[in-house]
Amino acid sequence: MRWRNGQGQTEDGSQSNDVLTKRYAPDELVAEFFAGKPRALARAISWAESGRGAELFHRLYGHTGRAMTIGLTGPPGVGKSTLSSALVRKARSVGKSVGVVSVDPTSPFSHGALLGDRIRLTEHFTDREVFIRSMASRGHLGGVAGATIDAVLLMDAFGMDVVLIETVGVGQSEIEVAELAQTVLVALQPGSGDSIQVLKAGIMEIADVFVINKADHPMANQLRREIRSMMEMLSFPGWVPELAMTQALTGDGVDELWAAIEKHAAYLHASGKYAEKRRQTFVHQVRQLALGGLERRLERSLRDIGDAGTDPYAAAVRVLETFGVGKD
Amino acid sequence: MRWRNGQGQTEDGSQSNDVLTKRYAPDELVAEFFAGKPRALARAISWAESGRGAELFHRLYGHTGRAMTIGLTGPPGVGKSTLSSALVRKARSVGKSVGVVSVDPTSPFSHGALLGDRIRLTEHFTDREVFIRSMASRGHLGGVAGATIDAVLLMDAFGMDVVLIETVGVGQSEIEVAELAQTVLVALQPGSGDSIQVLKAGIMEIADVFVINKADHPMANQLRREIRSMMEMLSFPGWVPELAMTQALTGDGVDELWAAIEKHAAYLHASGKYAEKRRQTFVHQVRQLALGGLERRLERSLRDIGDAGTDPYAAAVRVLETFGVGKD
Repeated sequence: MRWRNGQGQTEDGSQSNDVLTKRYAPDELVAEFFAGKPRALARAISWAESGRGAELFHRLYGHTGRAMTIGLTGPPGVGKSTLSSALVRKARSVGKSVGVVSVDPTSPFSHGALLGDRIRLTEHFTDREVFIRSMASRGHLGGVAGATIDAVLLMDAFGMDVVLIETVGVGQSEIEVAELAQTVLVALQPGSGDSIQVLKAGIMEIADVFVINKADHPMANQLRREIRSMMEMLSFPGWVPELAMTQALTGDGVDELWAAIEKHAAYLHASGKYAEKRRQTFVHQVRQLALGGLERRLERSLRDIGDAGTDPYAAAVRVLETFGVGKD
Repeated sequence: MRWRNGQGQTEDGSQSNDVLTKRYAPDELVAEFFAGKPRALARAISWAESGRGAELFHRLYGHTGRAMTIGLTGPPGVGKSTLSSALVRKARSVGKSVGVVSVDPTSPFSHGALLGDRIRLTEHFTDREVFIRSMASRGHLGGVAGATIDAVLLMDAFGMDVVLIETVGVGQSEIEVAELAQTVLVALQPGSGDSIQVLKAGIMEIADVFVINKADHPMANQLRREIRSMMEMLSFPGWVPELAMTQALTGDGVDELWAAIEKHAAYLHASGKYAEKRRQTFVHQVRQLALGGLERRLERSLRDIGDAGTDPYAAAVRVLETFGVGKD
């Protein structure tokens, strides 16, 4: 199998994507995909992003469900990209192929940080068993979340053993994206002051593994104590979140983090939660795609509404009637 | 007229809201609303937030369209709350009543900043002509944007001369909310390094007035030059964004900022853009409400979908058929 990273294909912009999508028929693309050609994987993701996922997924979806998917989220500055890179290195060291899906923040205020983040992953660009993809997703019917699930499923169907979803931003949508993974890592930073806020704000509920990065920081142990005491106040019906201390830059603690991830994966399979999570992701993807379709149709309905003599609520009721949706 | 701030009603939580909403019939509430009772305004916003806006708006919507609405957005740390407070003070000094709608960030990572931000507005809590409301909006059919428009319209119908929409967060949704105002202020901070990123990221297009806050900063003039040169590279068919330099803490430059806001308001009315903006807001609100209704109905459809032998795209097509939406 010849694997290359997908960066070459992803950064070309839409014009070159158009050229790529026009040159291939779905049959050809699927054939190349199953022949293990990384260009076909890159192209498949671009097709999905530009709204052509339906042509591929009825042939590829049956091949999904084998990859271990890991979501990584956390506040800015916590070292998510360095941690991603360390996890890729670890996965490679145990012989696993890795796909990385890097989700751009939707915030227009933080685009500046992206290039720097990507550079930290460059050490893996020449590794044939690593495929890195940044999501653009502008054209995707299901938005960022939909495009991300597609990319994860395509990497999974392609045969990647591990798919890491790294969310660069901190918005609710990025956290939702992270939740689509089987195992969710929440990275926290000592001395940042917002750790307890993070816990209060509902992040506790989504974390399968807490990662205290920059564990050499003088406040690292205090943060660990804070998280432990927060956890003691809650009850966990099944899985109790693990807590890993890492220094992603040196690789310290990454073995322990990896062990926690594998422990969680084993728990998911043993408890039957794995099938439940997969089902949730399926429903989420259907939701995103259906919403995209509804939104497009809604935009057409909105072109025709008048505003004379009516209020927005009354107008919305009329629009909903055209979808067969009544008051309830 | 007796005006009080609405803080007492907003922070009580849903239980007390339930009590409040059960005690009043719409007729009573509308009567108290038009009698100028601030409690009725607070209650009306709570009703709208909890999905009962339709009962009120067919009676109140005709009274909207008189307030001057100002949106304020910008990256964290720029001093938006201090600037809000300074603008409230200015508006009061020229005899105008002011409503403030403070939009919570959707990011669970930045909730910690909120309390501090709110405290900066406390000097106005005892002013009877100032009504401050933080949006919770969890129950609103149209999400944060829908709940915010409702609150703005209700303050407008109540007779507030000025409604200031302050977005605490930096996500796309907060910027969309700011865009709902007639006049959008984008606050920038000297020496923050991300000013040019902000401009590159499409913020230039939404700003009616740029506000360089902390104008005593050594880098303030450099930031002004940067913005001016960015503006020279663009063409503005109608309004050319104003640029104000403020020190919100001392009040320096706030008179000039206010003059810029009034100049923009005069432009909107003279050019006919005012009606256009009002129409956009109407359509946006209908969109949010309709989407909310579609999403609720979609959730019911999703409960019944199977996943055996199908892929998410095929399942989405079937769901869309139940809404009468075909492939296109």
